[in-house]
Parts: sequence; structure tokens; C-alpha cells
Amino acid sequence: MIQLYTDTSPNGFKATIALEELGLAYTIHHVRIDAGDHRQPAFLALNPHGRIPVITDPDTGITLFESAAILLYLADKTGRLLPAGKKVRWEAIQWLQFHAASVGPILGQRVHFELFEKTPMPIAIARYRRLTAEAFATLDARLSDRRYLAGDDYSIADIATFGWTHIADICGFRFDEYGNLARWHADIAGRPAVQRGIALPAPATGP
Amino acid sequence: MIQLYTDTSPNGFKATIALEELGLAYTIHHVRIDAGDHRQPAFLALNPHGRIPVITDPDTGITLFESAAILLYLADKTGRLLPAGKKVRWEAIQWLQFHAASVGPILGQRVHFELFEKTPMPIAIARYRRLTAEAFATLDARLSDRRYLAGDDYSIADIATFGWTHIADICGFRFDEYGNLARWHADIAGRPAVQRGIALPAPATGP
Ligand SMILES: N[C@@H](CCC(=O)N[C@@H](CS)C(=O)NCC(=O)O)C(=O)O
Ligand SMILES: N[C@@H](CCC(=O)N[C@@H](CS)C(=O)NCC(=O)O)C(=O)O
Repeated sequence: MIQLYTDTSPNGFKATIALEELGLAYTIHHVRIDAGDHRQPAFLALNPHGRIPVITDPDTGITLFESAAILLYLADKTGRLLPAGKKVRWEAIQWLQFHAASVGPILGQRVHFELFEKTPMPIAIARYRRLTAEAFATLDARLSDRRYLAGDDYSIADIATFGWTHIADICGFRFDEYGNLARWHADIAGRPAVQRGIALPAPATGP
Repeated sequence: MIQLYTDTSPNGFKATIALEELGLAYTIHHVRIDAGDHRQPAFLALNPHGRIPVITDPDTGITLFESAAILLYLADKTGRLLPAGKKVRWEAIQWLQFHAASVGPILGQRVHFELFEKTPMPIAIARYRRLTAEAFATLDARLSDRRYLAGDDYSIADIATFGWTHIADICGFRFDEYGNLARWHADIAGRPAVQRGIALPAPATGP
């Protein structure tokens, strides 16, 4: 059975949502970042960088960290959540990477400077507001004539992106002016597997 | 023939290095970020987010942005630069994602606050020094008993990571105290295709 090491956090939700969507059996290990569990030797043996999520899959002997790698792996393992057509498949991978490299890390910096950094730093805050607005605008334009990021098929690109729009929402980083993005977000949020995924590991405590 | 839209910059070098390593025929279009070429409608039609690199491949009709997506695509197209064994293949993909999501974006913020931001912001600089040191330490430990990030096989994980260690080096973000990482960097830098890749588009002008 797949073992998932995670906490209630944006990158963790990508893994719980995907596993719930796929209906795969898995065991959750709650790695409490607040308590420093991610800096313990047992966890560092799984991910030397000390970040969640991580999965291990005894079927293949594979251990993986980095949420985008985990999503690609689960899609490959099951043949689901990535469209089959070559062109649309690469679109899904592109938007997955857009999330992983260009959206998630920038939202992460915004969370840090707006919510966690004690010294007010208006220049840094303005920088990450501008960059997240650019990312939201790009996603909004992409969704202007499609239901999902890769078109008609719900994919790991949507799951990855939702992991962070969910947290943006909780943090008050509003995106309702981006009507297509807001519509897409509400659509994904309505999925039962997504609702289960964002409540794990229980009790869900937000970002 | 593949068309590559790029500038002399870390994410661009990943594409030029991979294309040079693979010996694929391609045409370079120099998108001058300094001149705002990446904000012109013709370029935004290729990547609505306005970032390089982008490729188009007339063999498949595929257009792709996001350097990690481009690297995965070129490996898939040629069957090269990703090891064939399942376990080691996922290791390569994991370290590619580690670079794309956890190293590149953080080095990018460090470049911004250390070199481009006019108002000195010691707290932000210290943050990104600490986070890049953590990333360097993780890479260094990974390379302590292997030649390349995925083991014996040079892969797109190495190419992606080198794109940024090359720039770190130019920017004076030293990593010589990380002996394994420094040895790996020198090894990759010695490859003829890498030397060609980092000089494109000519004339190379650094970050
Ligand atoms: N690029 C990584 C980021 C992982 C990450 O930053 N995880 C956070 C929780 S969302 C974490 O473990 N933080 C602990 C820390 O930064 O010390 C991924 O997508 O998996
Ligand atoms: N995650 C993207 C990042 C692309 C990126 O930021 N490219 C830079 C050059 S290295 C760029 O086009 N910058 C222009 C800008 O930020 O306006 C990738 O890996 O391709």
C-alpha cells in the first residue's frame, strides 16, 4: 500500500487529492511541520530536503518527493489524470510545470512576506502581489475557453493548481476578479475527492 | 525543425544545452528580455505568461513553455537523457522537479534581492541565502556517492540544475564549500555541448 507523508498544506493537498481521485489505497503519516517532524532523521531519510509531501510505493520500491513528480508518477501508475492524446497530454504537463515552477513558489513567497515575516516589507509584498496577479491572469486567460487547464479532461495540472488556489483563498489572496479562474476553482472545489483531500491529514488546520 | 525562443539566461540555457546534447537541428529566435521582446504579442501568443524558453516542434505541432516541460518533451521525443530503468527514471524526474520547483525559483529570488532590487533588504537577502544554502546542501549530499543526480546516467535533471548553478557562479553565489556539488558542476561544465549551450543565443551576456 502507498505510504504518504504529509501535512495540511498546499503541496500536501496535491497528493491527498490525487490519491482520493484515483481511489488508491494509502496510509497517511502526519508529518507535523509545526512540531519539526520534517527535520527528524526518519523523515530526512525519505526527503533529505525536509519537505512534504513524500510517497513510498512498495509495488515498485519507489520513494518520491516533489509534488509534481508524485502527480506524474500516480498518473503513470494508473493511466489516469493525464489525457491520452499526445498534444493535449503535453499541454497538461506544461500547465503542471507552470504551476510547480512559476505559480506555487511565488505564492509561497507571498504567504511568507504577507503572513509570516514579522518586519513589514512593503517592497517584497508588492513584488509578490504583482507576480501572483500575473500568474492568476495567465491562468484566467487559459481558462477563458476551456473547462480545465488541459481542455475537456480534468488532470494533474488542475489538482496541482487547486492545491495552491485553495490556500490563496484561505489566506485572503483574492482572485474573484479573474472570473474564469474563480469559476474553475469553484468547479474543482465541488468534487467530492477534492473535499476529502483538503481535509487530510485530519484535523485540517489550513496553511 | 524545432524553433527555440530564448535569451541568454538560466532557464534558456537548459533548452540550448539539451538541444546541443541531443544534436537535434533547431533554429534560435533571440527574445531580448532587456528590449521587452517577451511582452510583444507575437511572443505572448507562444507563452501568455511572457517568459522564455519556448519551443515549437513542427513534427508534432506542439508548442511548449516551462523549461522542465521542454526537457521532459525532448527526452521523450528522442528516448535519451532520461535513464530507462523505472526506479532510476523516477529519481531523475524527482531531481528535475526538485530543481524546477525548489531550487530555480529560490535562486531567482536571490538574484532579484541581491543584484536587482535597489532598496537594500537584508532580511530578504538573508532568507534567500539560507534557502539557497539548504538547496546546495541537499544537492551536495545527493552527489556524495554518485556522479550525476540520477546515478551513473547524465540526464535532464543535471541539465536543469546546471542551468542555474552556472548563473549562481556568474553571480558570485559561491558553492565551493559544497565539494560534491562543485565537482559535479565542473564535470558538467566540461561537456562540449554544455559549453555551446551556454554561449547561445550569441553573443552570450550572462544572467
Ligand atoms: N516543491 C516542493 C515544495 C514542498 C514544500 O515546500 N512543502 C512545504 C509544505 S507545503 C514544507 O514541507 N515546508 C517545510 C519547510 O519549508 O521547512 C513540492 O512541490 O513538493
Ligand atoms: N519556470 C519557468 C521560468 C521562466 C523564466 O522565468 N524565464 C525568465 C528568463 S530565465 C524570463 O523569461 N523572464 C522575463 C520576465 O520575468 O519578465 C521555466 O522554467 O521556464
